[in-house]
Amino acid sequence: MLHNPASKYRAFAPVRLTDRTWPDAVLGKPPVWCSVDLRDGNQALIEPMDPARKLRMFEQLVRIGFKEIEIGFPSASQADFDFARLLIEQNLIPADVTVQVLTQARDHLIERTFEALQGVPRAIVHLYNATAPVMRQVVLGLDEDGIVELATTHARLVSDLAARQPATQWTFQYSPEMFSGTELAFSKRVVDAVTAVWQPTPEHKCIVNLPSTVEHSTPNIFADMVEWMHRHLDRRDSIVLSVHPHNDRGTGTAAGEFALMAGADRIEGCLFGNGERTGNVDVVNIALNLYTQGVHPQLDFSDIDEIRRCVEHCNQLPVHPRHPYVGDLVYTSFSGSHQDAIKKAFAARRETDLWDMPYLPIDPKDLGRSYDAVIRVNSQSGKGGISYLLETEYGLELPRRLQIEFSSSVQAVMDAQGQELSAGDLWGIFEREYRLGAGGVTVDHLAINERDDGRIGLQATLRQGHRALRVAGEGAGPVDAFVDGLQRATGHQISVLDYHEHAIGAGAQARAAAYLELRIGDTRTLFGVGIDANIVTASIKAVLSGLQRCGVAWFATTATA
Amino acid sequence: MLHNPASKYRAFAPVRLTDRTWPDAVLGKPPVWCSVDLRDGNQALIEPMDPARKLRMFEQLVRIGFKEIEIGFPSASQADFDFARLLIEQNLIPADVTVQVLTQARDHLIERTFEALQGVPRAIVHLYNATAPVMRQVVLGLDEDGIVELATTHARLVSDLAARQPATQWTFQYSPEMFSGTELAFSKRVVDAVTAVWQPTPEHKCIVNLPSTVEHSTPNIFADMVEWMHRHLDRRDSIVLSVHPHNDRGTGTAAGEFALMAGADRIEGCLFGNGERTGNVDVVNIALNLYTQGVHPQLDFSDIDEIRRCVEHCNQLPVHPRHPYVGDLVYTSFSGSHQDAIKKAFAARRETDLWDMPYLPIDPKDLGRSYDAVIRVNSQSGKGGISYLLETEYGLELPRRLQIEFSSSVQAVMDAQGQELSAGDLWGIFEREYRLGAGGVTVDHLAINERDDGRIGLQATLRQGHRALRVAGEGAGPVDAFVDGLQRATGHQISVLDYHEHAIGAGAQARAAAYLELRIGDTRTLFGVGIDANIVTASIKAVLSGLQRCGVAWFATTATA
Repeated sequence: MLHNPASKYRAFAPVRLTDRTWPDAVLGKPPVWCSVDLRDGNQALIEPMDPARKLRMFEQLVRIGFKEIEIGFPSASQADFDFARLLIEQNLIPADVTVQVLTQARDHLIERTFEALQGVPRAIVHLYNATAPVMRQVVLGLDEDGIVELATTHARLVSDLAARQPATQWTFQYSPEMFSGTELAFSKRVVDAVTAVWQPTPEHKCIVNLPSTVEHSTPNIFADMVEWMHRHLDRRDSIVLSVHPHNDRGTGTAAGEFALMAGADRIEGCLFGNGERTGNVDVVNIALNLYTQGVHPQLDFSDIDEIRRCVEHCNQLPVHPRHPYVGDLVYTSFSGSHQDAIKKAFAARRETDLWDMPYLPIDPKDLGRSYDAVIRVNSQSGKGGISYLLETEYGLELPRRLQIEFSSSVQAVMDAQGQELSAGDLWGIFEREYRLGAGGVTVDHLAINERDDGRIGLQATLRQGHRALRVAGEGAGPVDAFVDGLQRATGHQISVLDYHEHAIGAGAQARAAAYLELRIGDTRTLFGVGIDANIVTASIKAVLSGLQRCGVAWFATTATA
Repeated sequence: MLHNPASKYRAFAPVRLTDRTWPDAVLGKPPVWCSVDLRDGNQALIEPMDPARKLRMFEQLVRIGFKEIEIGFPSASQADFDFARLLIEQNLIPADVTVQVLTQARDHLIERTFEALQGVPRAIVHLYNATAPVMRQVVLGLDEDGIVELATTHARLVSDLAARQPATQWTFQYSPEMFSGTELAFSKRVVDAVTAVWQPTPEHKCIVNLPSTVEHSTPNIFADMVEWMHRHLDRRDSIVLSVHPHNDRGTGTAAGEFALMAGADRIEGCLFGNGERTGNVDVVNIALNLYTQGVHPQLDFSDIDEIRRCVEHCNQLPVHPRHPYVGDLVYTSFSGSHQDAIKKAFAARRETDLWDMPYLPIDPKDLGRSYDAVIRVNSQSGKGGISYLLETEYGLELPRRLQIEFSSSVQAVMDAQGQELSAGDLWGIFEREYRLGAGGVTVDHLAINERDDGRIGLQATLRQGHRALRVAGEGAGPVDAFVDGLQRATGHQISVLDYHEHAIGAGAQARAAAYLELRIGDTRTLFGVGIDANIVTASIKAVLSGLQRCGVAWFATTATA
């Protein structure tokens, strides 16, 4: 049994802000968003991003619409320093985007920070030092006066060094670290002392950022703390009030929303809540919560799955299937009564109606998703599901995203046909949807050869009726090489996002089923499936399946042999 | 860009409970906990639990200390009906545990529910019907009077049928479904009408459960709604007021905590937040939030990893690495300054001090975790933990039979070594056991050609040091052809029983992992594993891996080139 916590843990003291206003506030406009994916998020990864992944993440953040992006802690990490230089020297920062860098309040770190920023057109320099009692006593060994002195001395150094690089448009930002664990009156004292140094104006504001470095309390207490600061800070009209919530108690999203209701103007967080320990606040979650309340977040998540794939690639961490708005399962109703209610409500809904759909707080189409109900295939067994039947009856082990993709094809047939489907019916739909007959295309004269440098060359002839298409390409493996050859032969851009393959049956009758997730052209992402005795041919067929499903012309328009 | 939401979504109306008390409330005691893992959680699974997994989950819930457990919806599912009978007939319900079953307000479903409960010593019958406007209009086609009539008629049927089984100690529970989307005054009207039928007393209360079936609003609004009901319901002293939050907006935990602060006595949810869409509220999260505030939740999570393994096994869904209190990464500090602060604070801490540790809101030891929190596997972990680690850390998706095979290798090391193993340790064992270095054997000059009859010919040269072995064979596909060639070259009989292959990573760095189940000679069956950029080479390496593991002489005894 857990031992008695009363002797070890104490309750967080409430603020008792009796005239609080935030519980009646309604958010009517989006905050200023700042992504810290490349700093707080990156430093919390098992394997931090390499330069290629960093750049991909940066470009993704820009595409989403972030105007403020914290790109690193250049004085603490050579990789972060180099990345800042790369962005600046290669002129990769769009004109409406401001990069932000973090630095601790120490002389040599601040100096190195300004070195990293030489020549940047605009930048936010984000200065922090610890202010919480535990940090004052145990880590820094300073009293309150000492902390104020530490903060103001380094704030002055920041403005002095900035003045030496007048071509850059500077914004200063200060964070009392562990604000959530610091006495309110002391937080105000330190922040006021820093802004007294910087002398911001309503035309040229500074940013004051309040981090819940560790989430210690229910989010109403954080909201009370932010509202208190909002009301009591000096020079409030010259401050962009920012928050930086974490999620240790699982209430980071609520804390972020309440902070905005309590007077904060800006929020720092990560895509899908990556970050130290339980993560930074999930800015996608907050943005889409706003969206479903009729407020445009000014961030673009209209192809949320593409963003998820980028984040999973860069962070090398999965997004959970139940993650709000983006998880694989969050638009799926398994319960028959849920499915029934949704179906009826869709039937009753007119295009111009407000969204009021049972069990669906957002229209999945707004995020580039479809309504992924897994169909109750058999009313007796209830909810075994399509994939269960295809696996037990036909030996197919569909990857999960393919299960979801396929379920909408099944749904369409169910809707047209209005009756339950047998395993054989499902197989028929699968065969047609994934062109298992390959549209009459056959693969002939397949030849694969390893070159001396280890690269693979592949040749094959595709035939359809009297037409033939010769494919020759090279790559790290045969699928790579085939895709390369097909791109050359057809001009279509194709990339393989994921693949799974497994045996069906054993012995002489064994065949391989290959499932490839493909991107064709710039945006279209879909699965192709191939089944063949030869594992390479199965993969090749899967590429052709995807291409045919995609509907682009390829065979007919190319030269005949 | 996302289109303008203002024409499609509306803001949730605030309750404006100006004399609300919940923001100043401090939770001083735990609520009554009710697990709905076996019902709401189970119905939301891709593959619902089979009887063995159901029983394992039930026993786990009992061990944790749940005294109320919703075991299913027996009138809607034969599997749930059978599970209820199993628990009752085999006398598996401890004397201090009450099972709960859900039923819709329909005659034949209620009758079937009481059939399922024949002979149970204690039970909660949980009756629900939809009350929200969208459900009244679109799904049920009833006005407010019709809904009240529906609810009271079936409440009466419940008490009538209960009276016919007097040996059972009955508790009645009613849920206005989609309470979160129902007008407060109407929710009160329906609930009051139902309790007027049941006539609960302070000595024999009924349960009134308020579900946020879909989370539509910030959690302060849910709290206002619960506080309003708490203050306005008739017969409040004879009611156990319960809530059942979901997590669509990512704020389910906050909603649950606030509801308790607003007057609720009881909460329904799932372990680690499983459930429809984004899940039910995570009761572990709420319980441990209480714990870190000095309040004993009366639930035992002192070996939280064991519970996680059970939940992952039963639900066949992972717990995310950043999940509060239980994720793999939540006690891990990657940042040097965090590590430094923690080290200093540990050094300064005396055993009897209150817990005040930077970056660690709870002592990981209280949950059976260690601080360094690189995931650990111990002798109790079994194959679930091992394969989970290899998947999350190294991207390997081991087929099930291979998991079983490999776990005995791990067990052997563990027994010899008697200490916990990190993911890296496991990878080391895997690499050695499956000869991922291929015993120094390389595959050169691989060539694959399709003949006119569609059969595949394959040639390759295997090299080990100065020795070379030329392999040439044919078959339906390259694996077949390689095995054929290897049999000819070595004289060993080899057949492929099963194979799985998948991508690790994406893009230019992607590699393939191949797992082949092989029979070598007459009887020996074992797995081989190969990893390579080329899917064919990966399979070939997997054959060689199996052959080397098998211990038969093959290379040394064959002719050198």
